[in-house]
Amino acid sequence: MTVTADNLVATVQRLVDQDDIKRVLFDYAFHLDAADPEKMLPLFTPDLHVAYGPSHGADGAEAYLETLTSEKFGVAAFFAGTSHHVSNIVIDFVDADTANVRSVLYAFHHYMRERADGIVYGQYHDIVVRTPDGWKIKRRELKHAGTETYHAKGDALNPIPRNSLPGSR
Amino acid sequence: MTVTADNLVATVQRLVDQDDIKRVLFDYAFHLDAADPEKMLPLFTPDLHVAYGPSHGADGAEAYLETLTSEKFGVAAFFAGTSHHVSNIVIDFVDADTANVRSVLYAFHHYMRERADGIVYGQYHDIVVRTPDGWKIKRRELKHAGTETYHAKGDALNPIPRNSLPGSR
Amino acid sequence: MTVTADNLVATVQRLVDQDDIKRVLFDYAFHLDAADPEKMLPLFTPDLHVAYGPSHGADGAEAYLETLTSEKFGVAAFFAGTSHHVSNIVIDFVDADTANVRSVLYAFHHYMRERADGIVYGQYHDIVVRTPDGWKIKRRELKHAGTETYHAKGDALNPIPRNSLPGSR
Repeated sequence: MTVTADNLVATVQRLVDQDDIKRVLFDYAFHLDAADPEKMLPLFTPDLHVAYGPSHGADGAEAYLETLTSEKFGVAAFFAGTSHHVSNIVIDFVDADTANVRSVLYAFHHYMRERADGIVYGQYHDIVVRTPDGWKIKRRELKHAGTETYHAKGDALNPIPRNSLPGSR
Repeated sequence: MTVTADNLVATVQRLVDQDDIKRVLFDYAFHLDAADPEKMLPLFTPDLHVAYGPSHGADGAEAYLETLTSEKFGVAAFFAGTSHHVSNIVIDFVDADTANVRSVLYAFHHYMRERADGIVYGQYHDIVVRTPDGWKIKRRELKHAGTETYHAKGDALNPIPRNSLPGSR
Repeated sequence: MTVTADNLVATVQRLVDQDDIKRVLFDYAFHLDAADPEKMLPLFTPDLHVAYGPSHGADGAEAYLETLTSEKFGVAAFFAGTSHHVSNIVIDFVDADTANVRSVLYAFHHYMRERADGIVYGQYHDIVVRTPDGWKIKRRELKHAGTETYHAKGDALNPIPRNSLPGSR
């Protein structure tokens, strides 16, 4: 893309938007790793849809907060420590106020109970929207390439699609 | 660097170029992790040079596609799942249409056959060029800092150079 | 944030500054993984403060160089190879010449002596300042979410604070 005086403002707006969107993804990881669900919720729209697996996720802010703060399975109750490493962020704008975002996740989980640490190799597939309070996640789907000693089994997670035959389409 | 009205367009062009170059690196990882070699090839120039080790790599698009789609050792045949995490991207422009790019790689490999998963801690050293179809990789060299239960032994891979003596130059 | 002709130069300046700051973080990792302390030092201000743990760190460039080049515990003497993966970079400008930066670290360590490789899941919390020679790190604190077979025990490292009770503030 060639930058000119004519498209300059729009181009810089897009760069700023991309930067703001990346920050939403990083703030999510930061507050998750701080076991602070109440700071995660404002990063989503109220009508959020989150899918961590075929039958694991949440619809709406209230349900999501309940999941995250569960006294038995919530992030602070279940994990003694986590570390979410988000990279490979690709942002495709659908229009000026909506974007599809994909990123790659390395997630470390240290459990409260005695067991080996669990690793997830995943991808976030998000839809983000511009709101009066900034960019927010409207839909987040986690897919996974593999895990190591993670508590959830592979078939409880969404797979990353792969070509099954070499060179096949 | 101080941004002024005079260098504004050129500066934004550079930021956009950097963004486009990063996307090439991320698309490579995405299509590789989808075991989709035919979508990886358009990210390279036809005269590509890829070196994964002293005697492992490819020259030219045809040879590379053959390597990637091999019925025995190709990415879809050899791996049941991979996850390539690319970060620490540093871009040095040689001229307006050429850049040296280095990045850091964490690569997870889950094999088709029964064996432990393999990890590679690496660096990509790329030369990218601007073409009428966007930025493409002309040369890619993978160096490595270490591996965990990876199928290729250390001496089949390019090492990351290290100072051997403390404080030595 | 809405980009306009009025804030255009300042906005692009900020984007360029962010880019320059990220590069300092990546150059740190690069020279560290090359076991090249003398190239790490110019990335810091002379009055640097580095804290890797409650009682492990350095004040001032001279002390830091001594730590990094120690014949027994320096990076080239202690590690046969390292790989520092820095992502999730969030930059908050305090003023035009100062910023708070946080990032997430995956650090692989292969030791000189016979022992298992060590992993650190961490966060860098930095203060960076603009100098006539570019952005430099004035203060760097490493916190950690967990480790795997790392030589330093957990209580020798700074923890990442977590909410101890689900939903608590």
